[in-house]
Amino acid sequence: MKTGKERVQLYDTTLRDGTQGLNVNLSLQDKLLIARRLDDLGVDYIEGGYPLSNAKDTAFFKEIASSKLRRARPVAFGMTRRKNTKVADDEGMKALLAVRTPTVCIVGKTWDLHVREVLQVGDQENLDMIAESVALCAKRGREVIYDAEHFFDGYNANPDYAIQTLLAAQDAGAACITLCDTNGGSVPDEIAIIVAAVRPKLHVPIGIHTHNDSGLAVANSLAAVRHGATLVQGTINGIGERCGNADLTTVAANLAIKMNRDVLGPGGLARLTEVSRYVYEIANLVPDDRQPYVGHAAFAHKGGMHVHAIRRVTRSYEHVNPEAVGNSRRVLISELSGASGVAVKIGQKLDVAHDKVLQRRLLKRLQEYEEQGYVYESAEASFELLCRKELGLYHPFWELGHWRVVALRSAKDSEPNTEAILKLRVKDGFEHHVSPGHGPVDAMAHAFLKALKPHYPNVEHIRLIDYKVRVINPRAATAAKVRVTIEFLDVQTHELYGTVGISENIIEASWQALVDGFEYKLINDEEKAKKSRNRSSAIANVEKPTSRTRRGERRNQTRKR
Amino acid sequence: MKTGKERVQLYDTTLRDGTQGLNVNLSLQDKLLIARRLDDLGVDYIEGGYPLSNAKDTAFFKEIASSKLRRARPVAFGMTRRKNTKVADDEGMKALLAVRTPTVCIVGKTWDLHVREVLQVGDQENLDMIAESVALCAKRGREVIYDAEHFFDGYNANPDYAIQTLLAAQDAGAACITLCDTNGGSVPDEIAIIVAAVRPKLHVPIGIHTHNDSGLAVANSLAAVRHGATLVQGTINGIGERCGNADLTTVAANLAIKMNRDVLGPGGLARLTEVSRYVYEIANLVPDDRQPYVGHAAFAHKGGMHVHAIRRVTRSYEHVNPEAVGNSRRVLISELSGASGVAVKIGQKLDVAHDKVLQRRLLKRLQEYEEQGYVYESAEASFELLCRKELGLYHPFWELGHWRVVALRSAKDSEPNTEAILKLRVKDGFEHHVSPGHGPVDAMAHAFLKALKPHYPNVEHIRLIDYKVRVINPRAATAAKVRVTIEFLDVQTHELYGTVGISENIIEASWQALVDGFEYKLINDEEKAKKSRNRSSAIANVEKPTSRTRRGERRNQTRKR
Repeated sequence: MKTGKERVQLYDTTLRDGTQGLNVNLSLQDKLLIARRLDDLGVDYIEGGYPLSNAKDTAFFKEIASSKLRRARPVAFGMTRRKNTKVADDEGMKALLAVRTPTVCIVGKTWDLHVREVLQVGDQENLDMIAESVALCAKRGREVIYDAEHFFDGYNANPDYAIQTLLAAQDAGAACITLCDTNGGSVPDEIAIIVAAVRPKLHVPIGIHTHNDSGLAVANSLAAVRHGATLVQGTINGIGERCGNADLTTVAANLAIKMNRDVLGPGGLARLTEVSRYVYEIANLVPDDRQPYVGHAAFAHKGGMHVHAIRRVTRSYEHVNPEAVGNSRRVLISELSGASGVAVKIGQKLDVAHDKVLQRRLLKRLQEYEEQGYVYESAEASFELLCRKELGLYHPFWELGHWRVVALRSAKDSEPNTEAILKLRVKDGFEHHVSPGHGPVDAMAHAFLKALKPHYPNVEHIRLIDYKVRVINPRAATAAKVRVTIEFLDVQTHELYGTVGISENIIEASWQALVDGFEYKLINDEEKAKKSRNRSSAIANVEKPTSRTRRGERRNQTRKR
Repeated sequence: MKTGKERVQLYDTTLRDGTQGLNVNLSLQDKLLIARRLDDLGVDYIEGGYPLSNAKDTAFFKEIASSKLRRARPVAFGMTRRKNTKVADDEGMKALLAVRTPTVCIVGKTWDLHVREVLQVGDQENLDMIAESVALCAKRGREVIYDAEHFFDGYNANPDYAIQTLLAAQDAGAACITLCDTNGGSVPDEIAIIVAAVRPKLHVPIGIHTHNDSGLAVANSLAAVRHGATLVQGTINGIGERCGNADLTTVAANLAIKMNRDVLGPGGLARLTEVSRYVYEIANLVPDDRQPYVGHAAFAHKGGMHVHAIRRVTRSYEHVNPEAVGNSRRVLISELSGASGVAVKIGQKLDVAHDKVLQRRLLKRLQEYEEQGYVYESAEASFELLCRKELGLYHPFWELGHWRVVALRSAKDSEPNTEAILKLRVKDGFEHHVSPGHGPVDAMAHAFLKALKPHYPNVEHIRLIDYKVRVINPRAATAAKVRVTIEFLDVQTHELYGTVGISENIIEASWQALVDGFEYKLINDEEKAKKSRNRSSAIANVEKPTSRTRRGERRNQTRKR
């Protein structure tokens, strides 16, 4: 299995340091979902949180312990004991040990300035705090990773003391010592020189933890590895405080492809793009199109100027094969790279995986919509409905009579009064409802629910959980086309799905996205019911002789009567 | 004036290579606006475009020649002559020379693979193409910068030939040779080794041009400078094809602050943040909050955990002083850094520049609005109105009776029918109008114009040129708050100004932004008229004796009648 390449361990801290980022807020459920994907990717460590800081992090470790991770070790994060405190009595240490992770990470002070001015303790007391905290966790059977905060700044200020702090941790039983560029101010040459100087002084493995304040987090991580670090801490998409942490997606790809190191699990590299986008979605952040390796534009060739050359000599315009990191080349206007992309996206579900002609027909239809401005990347439900319509696997559940939205504000109102009126023909009758709402779309969604619920009670399980608006051609101002994306959660199946609508009129665009959201649920519930009926009859077939006999008997009996 | 620091020249290609980026489209006017800011910043070269590729680029060079740049030299970009063509007859060379820039940049092939497979010429013919193209431009008095395309890949494949291409350019009279990592696949150690190997073989200055496909564009630029490059090519905010170019804002800050080099003009570093945001605005791109040095979150300290420590020892949590690059620390929720920020923003216009008490009152009001989700960065007109209201420098131009928006779609319509009804009391009467529109906001804007024009004919000069919607708390789905930003152009004064509105109801949020847009124009026109009346009466005062005499005479005459 091992390739003879040197292993570099990846230590993900998306769930801890990543959540320090602006607008990054992860629920317990979000954290568990991300942890599972990180494990699939094959990272070595998942730092899940800081048990002392909040109850959510403690709950995370409880949940993660019972879910079987395949490779990754969950890590709880804590600080060295407080000053003037017995280590066994320290609240932080107790919380850290209480979550019972196999590995813990303890952060301590390196920089004498910080020791004196921020902690306000003596140099020796800081060394004791490090040693006692590490020793306690090691004695309790934990693998201890020691994070040396502000290491590079501290080393520049007072190299002897900085090294003493590392030795305190090592001698107390730390399994790995991570050098942190906490302020993100170091440059690669500096990192290289300092890591090379530290390396011979320690016998435990060295890790590196960088921030991107100088735009050099990735380069600094690579420089550290080049000079002896064998563990890299970072976050997916580089999310984190200020300018973020080292982006583990870029680090992993560079280490594997550019530096010939062994990273992640088997097939992990090819999952980088998927995991990157998954984390953006869960964290509700806008993906960075220009992100190296995994960005939407990372392999996009504009204008078609190079297209011919690219076909002729692919490597002349691409530094790596996009498929190596699970990304794809974009040469056409289409967001999906060719018919095979369609197959990947929808092939299994709609049974077109082996039909090239059907795939090409779907691709053509898709491109027509994309030219109008539709984007299906986070609207897979709309994409599925589009394919179903093209393949004849669709039927409507209602017919529109009309809808009307009225918003009225007079001088005395602080908020406008908004109503949506909706008339649908459902099955054999009409449903005609009016509903108020916070805004036109909210009102419309409520009217929709009222109209459908009597006929399709399942719709009550649909939750609208995210709503996005983007102006496509902003320079057209108020006559601009808008794209509305709505994300739904089916609380019955726990499926998350997105839909999209486009129009010059925001209400119409929202209407389209709402329609797709309701139809997707209804058509999939119907299919599931059909399959389960087929399965029942298949089971019935297995029991055929008996059951037929019995039924036959019964029928005969009936006839006899 | 010179500090004894080594000068590194910055060569900006935002207007040429930057426009290869996804969703980057710049009009001629946009390019001229950006060029002026780049000149203020103090970049050494502004690559304005590729004259052969389109008429807009040719027009740019004509315009820029007549506008006096203070420091920057405009550069036209072109390729080496085509194969089997006499250099003086080559269309590209003719176009390049026709724009009469003092400096030209010629790109040529380094990589033997490209020479053979893409150009499909012999190795010697490529050398001739380089030499003849450079020589022609040099002979016509141009400073020639030679860009060696795919230099690092070419050097790795065939170092001897790669060097020959550089020597061909140097011997033909190139003033500078730029080594390009066109595919963005190189790592800093590789760049360092190759630049160090090339440096002694050339006597002209060396430049570096990197792309960010490995997340290393900045690190690669710094590595090249460390080993002898004295010119760096890049773009503002790193915009460019695929993962973008080296971000000149990060490069400039790192060179000046981390590597003690002389870059930009006097005070240029402190303008980096402003220029970065300006380019985002003009290019209609969403700024990257996490961008090093200039990003909105680059010095944001979350949660207040470190706030106390930051106050105690600032440098313990910040790698540089944010003000050095024109950015500001964000500890409070406010987007403006304190009362002095308010003073900078509005001080001159509303005469609060020296009144600290007023500044603090405005800041407090501003923070109240920001807590509700208002953002004033691209809505300075709304900010000015907010300040005017607080300072008593505002009066209304109308009173709202009511507005009503109706959108109706029946089964037979492909688009909904949308109408806005607006009733305003203006001066002493009522204006009551209805207008159709592409959507609710468009209809409302038209009704507004109808209502105001009879009383304030100046409103017809207002154009709505940009409309943006952002959902502030997306997880609240259709009940989420939306923030609408509208950009207006006053075609009378050529002023661009932005406004903002917030509500759970998108129509209400748009209404607020529209109201501010109309009021801003009316109140500023009124002030101008007042000033010009004062000026006239000041002029009148100078001529007082005569005019008073005359008027007096006339009055007397009248009385006599």
